[in-house]
Amino acid sequence: MVRVEMLAVGKELLIGRTLNTNAHWVGKRLARMGTMLKVITTVDDDLVEIATAFRNIVRRSPDFLVVMGGLGPTPDDMTLKGVADALGVELKQSEAALAMIREHYARRGLGKMELTPSRVKMATLPVGAQPLANTTGTAPGVRLAVGRTTVFCLPGVPAEMRGIFRRSVEPEVKRKLGVLHRRYVTMKIEGVFESALAPVIAEELKRHPDAYIKSHPRGIREGVSRIELDIAVVGEDKEATDQEGKGIADEMQNAVTSMGGKIKTSRGLED
Amino acid sequence: MVRVEMLAVGKELLIGRTLNTNAHWVGKRLARMGTMLKVITTVDDDLVEIATAFRNIVRRSPDFLVVMGGLGPTPDDMTLKGVADALGVELKQSEAALAMIREHYARRGLGKMELTPSRVKMATLPVGAQPLANTTGTAPGVRLAVGRTTVFCLPGVPAEMRGIFRRSVEPEVKRKLGVLHRRYVTMKIEGVFESALAPVIAEELKRHPDAYIKSHPRGIREGVSRIELDIAVVGEDKEATDQEGKGIADEMQNAVTSMGGKIKTSRGLED
Repeated sequence: MVRVEMLAVGKELLIGRTLNTNAHWVGKRLARMGTMLKVITTVDDDLVEIATAFRNIVRRSPDFLVVMGGLGPTPDDMTLKGVADALGVELKQSEAALAMIREHYARRGLGKMELTPSRVKMATLPVGAQPLANTTGTAPGVRLAVGRTTVFCLPGVPAEMRGIFRRSVEPEVKRKLGVLHRRYVTMKIEGVFESALAPVIAEELKRHPDAYIKSHPRGIREGVSRIELDIAVVGEDKEATDQEGKGIADEMQNAVTSMGGKIKTSRGLED
Repeated sequence: MVRVEMLAVGKELLIGRTLNTNAHWVGKRLARMGTMLKVITTVDDDLVEIATAFRNIVRRSPDFLVVMGGLGPTPDDMTLKGVADALGVELKQSEAALAMIREHYARRGLGKMELTPSRVKMATLPVGAQPLANTTGTAPGVRLAVGRTTVFCLPGVPAEMRGIFRRSVEPEVKRKLGVLHRRYVTMKIEGVFESALAPVIAEELKRHPDAYIKSHPRGIREGVSRIELDIAVVGEDKEATDQEGKGIADEMQNAVTSMGGKIKTSRGLED
C-alpha cells in the first residue's frame, strides 16, 4: 500500500474561518486513484508547530507527503522555513523559482517584475528542493526528497494548488501505484437502525477484508431511521473489482430487506 | 495560553466523502472564546493510526484534547479502543454509560432497550473514563484525564457533537481561560497586490505582536487584485481590546488607500 499524508498549514483552518476544501479535494482525487490520505495534520502558521509536525510525519516514512499552504509573500507564510528547520537545512534563493515568478508577471502583462523582498521570499527554497511551475498564481510549488518520502509543498489557494497537483503530484503517485481499479456504491437506507446493521457489516467485512463498508447515520425522522451506506473495493483486475463491489452491494441489500428496511437509492460509480 | 488540540477519526474525512465541518465549528467556537485549536490531526479508522496520533498529541501536553468520531456501534468505530491502547488501559463496560443509552431509548419511546452487542459496545469505555450525556443520539461522550490533559471524546454526528460540546466541553475550557474579550475585523480590499501589502502587515505585526493579521488572496479580476484581510485581537480588558482592534483596522485602511487601493467593505464583530 502506498502511504500518503498531508500537512495543512494555516490559522484560518483552525479558527473556523476556512473549511479545508483542499484536503477534501486531494482526498477525493487520491481515493479515485486507488490510494488515500492516511493522516491529515493541520497546524498553525508557527515555525515550531510546522517543524514538529513535519518531523513527526517523515518519521512515519510515507511514500508521499503533500504540504499545503503558507508559500505566499506575507510574514505568516512560513511553511518552507518550518520545513527547512525540521530538516536542518538552509533556505536559499532559487534562480529557477525566480524565473518562474518573473514569467508569471510577464504572462499577466504586468511587465518587468520588480524584485521586492516579498517576491524574493517566494523564490527562497530549502536547499535541495526544486520549484514546480504554478500556471495560475505567483508562488511556485516545491518538491523535495526526504529519505524515502517525496514531499510536495503546494500553495493554499485552491486553483493554484489544483493545477500543480494535477501536473506534478498525480503523475508521480500514479507511477508508484501502478494501474488500479475502483468500484464504489453508495445507498440510502430507511427503516433499519445503525446498531442493527452493524453486525451485518462486520460479517460482510469478514468475507471481504479489503473492502470499505461504512454506514453514516442520517437521523431519525418520524420514528424511521435513515442511513447512508458506502461500499468501495479497489483492485488490479477490473472485472474482479466490479464483481466484488456488486456482490457486496447485493448482499447488503438483501440483508436490509430481510430486516424490514428499504433501499431508497443505490448509486454505483466506476472510474 | 491554553492549548487545545483535536483528533478527528474517520475515513470519510480522508477520502473526500465528508468535509470536516465539525473541526470548523469547534474551531470557531474556541476562537470566539479567546483560544484556538492549535493542531487538528485527522486519522483513518485504524487502531494503530488512532493510538499513534493520540500518543503524539498527549506528549505535547495540551490543556484539552477533543477527539471526534468513531464512538458508534459499527466495527469501524474504534476510537475508544485506540485511546485505551495508547494509554495501556483496558476497556470496561460502564454502568453509567449503559444507563444513558437505556434512557435514550426510553426517551424516544422505543420501550425497553434490548442489550445487543452493538449497544454494549457504545457503553464500553477506557478504565478511568466518565461518560457524558448525549441528549440527541445514542453513544455517550467520554471524558478522561491524561497527565495534565483533559480529553473529551465526542461522536462525529454534528448535532450530537455540538450538544455535548456546549454542555460538557465549553464550561471547562471557559473556566480555564478566565474572562477574555475578542475584537475581530474583516475587510475586502481591491487594487493592491498581496505582495505589496505584505511589508505593511509585517510592520503592523511588529507594533502589535499578539494580534492576528492575515491576508487571503481572492484572485485578480480584470487586472484588479482582490484581497480579504482578517484582523483579530484578544485581551482581558474589553476597552483596550476594542481600541487595539480598531487602531489596526484604521492603520491598514490608511495604508491601503495611500497605495491607491480601495476598501470595499469592512465588518467588525464583537463577542
